[in-house]
Amino acid sequence: MRDRSGITFRITGISSRRLGWIADPEGLDSTALLSGDIEALRAQSGGHRDVRQWLAAARGDVLFEATSLNVENGQPAIDHIRAALEHGAHAVTANKGPVVHAYRELRDLAAGKGKRFLFESAVMDGVPIFSLFDQLPAIHLQGFHGILNSTTNVILSHMEEGLSFDAALKKAQELGIAETDATHDIDGWDAAVKTAALITVLMDVPVRLDQIAREGIRDLAPSAVRNARRDGWPFKLVCRARRTANGVQASVAPEKVRNNEPMARISGASSYVYFETDIFPGLAITEENPGLYATAYGLLADFVRCVK
Amino acid sequence: MRDRSGITFRITGISSRRLGWIADPEGLDSTALLSGDIEALRAQSGGHRDVRQWLAAARGDVLFEATSLNVENGQPAIDHIRAALEHGAHAVTANKGPVVHAYRELRDLAAGKGKRFLFESAVMDGVPIFSLFDQLPAIHLQGFHGILNSTTNVILSHMEEGLSFDAALKKAQELGIAETDATHDIDGWDAAVKTAALITVLMDVPVRLDQIAREGIRDLAPSAVRNARRDGWPFKLVCRARRTANGVQASVAPEKVRNNEPMARISGASSYVYFETDIFPGLAITEENPGLYATAYGLLADFVRCVK
Repeated sequence: MRDRSGITFRITGISSRRLGWIADPEGLDSTALLSGDIEALRAQSGGHRDVRQWLAAARGDVLFEATSLNVENGQPAIDHIRAALEHGAHAVTANKGPVVHAYRELRDLAAGKGKRFLFESAVMDGVPIFSLFDQLPAIHLQGFHGILNSTTNVILSHMEEGLSFDAALKKAQELGIAETDATHDIDGWDAAVKTAALITVLMDVPVRLDQIAREGIRDLAPSAVRNARRDGWPFKLVCRARRTANGVQASVAPEKVRNNEPMARISGASSYVYFETDIFPGLAITEENPGLYATAYGLLADFVRCVK
Repeated sequence: MRDRSGITFRITGISSRRLGWIADPEGLDSTALLSGDIEALRAQSGGHRDVRQWLAAARGDVLFEATSLNVENGQPAIDHIRAALEHGAHAVTANKGPVVHAYRELRDLAAGKGKRFLFESAVMDGVPIFSLFDQLPAIHLQGFHGILNSTTNVILSHMEEGLSFDAALKKAQELGIAETDATHDIDGWDAAVKTAALITVLMDVPVRLDQIAREGIRDLAPSAVRNARRDGWPFKLVCRARRTANGVQASVAPEKVRNNEPMARISGASSYVYFETDIFPGLAITEENPGLYATAYGLLADFVRCVK
């Protein structure tokens, strides 16, 4: 297959818990891939033992890593990405875990192999945040703040309209924004991991998750949320980071935001980040109403960055 | 000299109306450059006849073009950039004229020579707007709107506080934001040229300046400006562009902006642009209170992009 950038590609491997490790260097049957015909795919060339054997069999040039976030240790994504880079493939992921738990190792491994380790979809659904800073040579990022978790933002909006926390969560789940287990979002883990990823990569300060003061929205009374909006100081789950003498101070917590502050306007699934730099004292990016494909687009854009 | 990116550089030529064409492939005397000692520089190696002779003598790898905007035809910047690319040097400019009047020719010439033609400082003081879209492969820009001219924004702010147009202009000049001849800003030319540059490059639609409906702020009565702010609908000089069946429809005009719309908060020298794309329905960039070096930084960042 060939896309309009003139990049030729084929899918030579696919893997999931359900599929096992399926690989064929000549390319997998696209009809079976699109229809999810697992038996046909397995018959084609399933049965590899692990990620390394699978990568060798697929002879992949680029790995897309899409396992879900493991807050504690970033696994198994880190092992997959490490294996891909050692195999000599670029590694692209939407998973924040490897960025927070193994950024320096994977970055240096990629550099040593002349390959890329890219993760643009990890924060703000593929809006090119990390790539933007690639375009800002020698700039010094002093701090940032923003709204980076959609689920809590949607829940807060519904609570402002009068729903209980549980009803607002249910609505966010029905909209397909919150997952069935939304604990990671509600308790601020997702926002904290994104904050840690931005600090680690853009401020070049490794930070552990337990160094980020974290408070979710679970304990906010619906009446408090409604009153705050009515009084013009809506609650938002705000991420903050700032350089200090010893590193970076960072937090995720519900804050009452002034009505004339840009964060007050970030509703639903939109997100916002405001960077403080030496050259640009305030450089803010707003993502309004991301489309369904925004995260997948980020993976595609990373793919183009790898192979162009 | 060597900067912290490991790039080695020396200044082998400098030129201005006052200096003439001065070149020395071994590098100009940096003490004389910094102190503006024209006689020492001229003695070192002035006297070249024109841009081509000067480029050959300087053996430059990168040209920084910094003549002022010529709205009518983009000259002499176009000639300088063309000469640099033909000589085999990258060309970097903060001048919008060449982008609006000769983008495709210079882009294709640069590509043919394996060199770069970059102009990040032409819009939003070096905020990486054009570079951002380099990071958005295969995206489709349907339109944009924003506030791109600082002088009019500062003048409007002062008029809201009660100053007359002339007094507000004088204040903007004293702040170093408006030039002595601020006609280009006040009558919307600067904003129109920036709008045309964004359309030409990011929407890939060549547009002539006379195709952009243009209205400046000269005819706004101070009382209208004050009342609009009081009523929560402040006047802003708004740039707009939108794809149509036959190309792009674009305008620059004072508009009353709703108070809860992000543009209402863009005050003083800040700027704002909101892009509508297929993947990201709303992707907005805000530049608050740019520092003194923001435009020069854009030239530096372009330099790094050229030589890295």
